Amino acid sequence: MASPKPDAKAPYTRKDFPYFSTIQTRWNDNDLCGHINNAVYYTYFDTVVNGFLIEKGLLQLGQAQTIGLVVETLCQYFAPLAYPDSIDAGLRTRKIGTSSVTYEIALFKKGCDTAAAQGHFVHVYVDEKTRKPNPLSNQMRSLLHQLETPQ
Amino acid sequence: MASPKPDAKAPYTRKDFPYFSTIQTRWNDNDLCGHINNAVYYTYFDTVVNGFLIEKGLLQLGQAQTIGLVVETLCQYFAPLAYPDSIDAGLRTRKIGTSSVTYEIALFKKGCDTAAAQGHFVHVYVDEKTRKPNPLSNQMRSLLHQLETPQ
Amino acid sequence: MASPKPDAKAPYTRKDFPYFSTIQTRWNDNDLCGHINNAVYYTYFDTVVNGFLIEKGLLQLGQAQTIGLVVETLCQYFAPLAYPDSIDAGLRTRKIGTSSVTYEIALFKKGCDTAAAQGHFVHVYVDEKTRKPNPLSNQMRSLLHQLETPQ
Amino acid sequence: MASPKPDAKAPYTRKDFPYFSTIQTRWNDNDLCGHINNAVYYTYFDTVVNGFLIEKGLLQLGQAQTIGLVVETLCQYFAPLAYPDSIDAGLRTRKIGTSSVTYEIALFKKGCDTAAAQGHFVHVYVDEKTRKPNPLSNQMRSLLHQLETPQ
Repeated sequence: MASPKPDAKAPYTRKDFPYFSTIQTRWNDNDLCGHINNAVYYTYFDTVVNGFLIEKGLLQLGQAQTIGLVVETLCQYFAPLAYPDSIDAGLRTRKIGTSSVTYEIALFKKGCDTAAAQGHFVHVYVDEKTRKPNPLSNQMRSLLHQLETPQ
Repeated sequence: MASPKPDAKAPYTRKDFPYFSTIQTRWNDNDLCGHINNAVYYTYFDTVVNGFLIEKGLLQLGQAQTIGLVVETLCQYFAPLAYPDSIDAGLRTRKIGTSSVTYEIALFKKGCDTAAAQGHFVHVYVDEKTRKPNPLSNQMRSLLHQLETPQ
Repeated sequence: MASPKPDAKAPYTRKDFPYFSTIQTRWNDNDLCGHINNAVYYTYFDTVVNGFLIEKGLLQLGQAQTIGLVVETLCQYFAPLAYPDSIDAGLRTRKIGTSSVTYEIALFKKGCDTAAAQGHFVHVYVDEKTRKPNPLSNQMRSLLHQLETPQ
Repeated sequence: MASPKPDAKAPYTRKDFPYFSTIQTRWNDNDLCGHINNAVYYTYFDTVVNGFLIEKGLLQLGQAQTIGLVVETLCQYFAPLAYPDSIDAGLRTRKIGTSSVTYEIALFKKGCDTAAAQGHFVHVYVDEKTRKPNPLSNQMRSLLHQLETPQ
């Protein structure tokens, strides 16, 4: 596995993201240390990505023939977040392949321009039954390109 | 953030790990897709690392003056895991710094020699009050070196 | 333990509640059956009650000398809720004792007047260190009475 | 909803239960207060009940034509539990109806004979597609009666 060093970028800012949604924190997101537990950030990432797909009509839960399998996730934590913070989540895409997409997500505390955490989420879209990769539809590919950012 | 490509190593096998513990899955670890949700893997990682530290007398919950802040986590998912699987978690260390450690964790299904998932977890040890880095104690450093593996 | 029968009331409606807040569901709130997992409802209850206390200045996380220990929780499930539903949570109080309160919470799907689920949450307020019951402050008692409903 | 008073029984002891399984706690089961969060107890209940059904061959995840809908859950908390405690969960049945069952679960800390928490879980078994109640099979009814305890 790669060292954390090469990944250790400066935090993103809000202008780096074309799409935002709001995450409501919950009391038990906080752990013993008084901050949101590291695993909980990934439930935010999941919700941001799937919320975007649902909003755009690209994901119908329970009726999907193509589902997004998660093959890699990463998160870097720069500054603490804690309930009852309200969080703005920025979303963008990178590396749109034949049947896979890398989503990048950054979490911003209200009033802060610098990400408190950021990471990625790699989806491979597969047939729900055979679990073999399905090429992205033209509609989905077009939409994902609208969120694309140069590397 | 780095591309997933350079990280895309082959799955580890059991012989790559000097320490194991067992993870019991729970009914609601499974999500809509019938497999353990990607975020839940990180609760396993947390439990493996902290369980090791508690077992070795290096972490007393509620009394700690030094706490491990998580600064980066990553997971790669190779094969599905699902409740009611029982999981063997392998643990090892890498990059033991002055006040930080990279833990590597791999999850093995019972009877499988190849990891279903693997990832890392970077802890920076800080003073509980000031949140400034604290150098690792000699006792802890010595123990972490016993789990070290060459890169 | 009492039979579920005596508790088996008809679902509440919105007019039964003096205070509401909104709950944002998350992708992994849904379980294998495609609905929000029964345990997750209690994380909503927790968030509604603590959110109310924080909003009213009665709970400062991390600085509290008096904390609310949960001694009993109950939930009845009438109709399914699922991500990505947005949920309105109604809150009211009953049985305001010397150092304890019973909160009643009902969850309404947007556009529905009848509760999809309802339950209670009994808090005993204790000293954070000694864990002995602390009488409710006059300020808190007065606020809780504003949410009170006749039985 | 009923007052907590009529429910306020003395904690059960181990001899009250014919079946036990072990629950492994996780680091992030603990919340801000240093104890297992009230909602997490229900994930234990879920796992105990479904684990029993799977062990006895009565539940095949992903292939079930009959599923257990949860219609009511309750938990009373007598004494704190916290990670890294190992927990013994006792299970018994009551009120075995045509298509419904009330399970009672109690959680015991290792070495303690008195329950730290106890509660119930009411399942109605329904057809997976129509969601209409399905009568319990003879096999299941027979098994549930083995766990029955007089009220």
